[in-house]
Amino acid sequence: MPIIRVELLKGRTIEQKREFADVVTREAARILRCSPEVVDIVFHEVERHDWSSNGRLYSDK
Amino acid sequence: MPIIRVELLKGRTIEQKREFADVVTREAARILRCSPEVVDIVFHEVERHDWSSNGRLYSDK
Amino acid sequence: MPIIRVELLKGRTIEQKREFADVVTREAARILRCSPEVVDIVFHEVERHDWSSNGRLYSDK
Amino acid sequence: MPIIRVELLKGRTIEQKREFADVVTREAARILRCSPEVVDIVFHEVERHDWSSNGRLYSDK
Amino acid sequence: MPIIRVELLKGRTIEQKREFADVVTREAARILRCSPEVVDIVFHEVERHDWSSNGRLYSDK
Amino acid sequence: MPIIRVELLKGRTIEQKREFADVVTREAARILRCSPEVVDIVFHEVERHDWSSNGRLYSDK
Repeated sequence: MPIIRVELLKGRTIEQKREFADVVTREAARILRCSPEVVDIVFHEVERHDWSSNGRLYSDK
Repeated sequence: MPIIRVELLKGRTIEQKREFADVVTREAARILRCSPEVVDIVFHEVERHDWSSNGRLYSDK
Repeated sequence: MPIIRVELLKGRTIEQKREFADVVTREAARILRCSPEVVDIVFHEVERHDWSSNGRLYSDK
Repeated sequence: MPIIRVELLKGRTIEQKREFADVVTREAARILRCSPEVVDIVFHEVERHDWSSNGRLYSDK
Repeated sequence: MPIIRVELLKGRTIEQKREFADVVTREAARILRCSPEVVDIVFHEVERHDWSSNGRLYSDK
Repeated sequence: MPIIRVELLKGRTIEQKREFADVVTREAARILRCSPEVVDIVFHEVERHDWSSNGRLYSDK
């Protein structure tokens, strides 16, 4: 049931995503009391010129 | 008015998206009683290494 | 696999959502060639004062 | 930087969300190598009649 | 065409949303060179116990 | 706190995004009464064959 969507700046490795998926699925299942089988995690990588904080694109920082 | 967002694993063809857009817009308009002109559908394709279920990335399955 | 998210103005009935879920799941499975079991649909109802088009809130139209 | 959005069926307690936020922020910061200060988590609770899988609303299951 | 989604903590007034919709639609149309008629803005209000930053729910701060 | 997500058809320049981020952050901070430092804006560019309105993909129009 839970769908977890992660927006993050481009540049993380597949190993990092693999570990994140593994650990966060296990913690989500434990804390939210559901089966890990129903936990979906989707990563959305964002380019630095597509994300701004404080009014400035990351690519300009 | 309705905005329909579809997250799906990469690999569908444009023909499939075209048919999906056509059919689902028609059904949405009929069931939700709105004009098809106000139905927007946006596809977000996701790489297999960016989606996990049951704690494992699809690219590892 | 496909996750379908539907944003729509408040006011649709459960019967409408039920029919939408039934029909769109079937069409998604057929067109995208996946099992209906892996199709998730999530409705997000939006108040009229939380949606604007052309610069005006629906509640002001 | 990472923004984590969690869609889940209504009914989780604030204690569960608190623990999830605490644990997942820590793991996200460790795995993705960022400061916990830049991790945002947003929960979107969904009513059982607003979520379907396999073509059926959870409220009908 | 552009769909602008704004997640924000609960507590803003309708007057603030009205002004935001008006101003941001105008600026979006000007900067992105599109008609204001095709700009949709959707607000998603989030409860303080449904948003955490730095691992803590806003309701606990 | 506010997270602003902008879905738009591919083809805008970085200059347009830069100006949008600058102007909309300033207006969001002024209207919603928050610091510009807590305003995040994320752009999601969408291919013309991944967006339909009125049942037709933009790439077919």
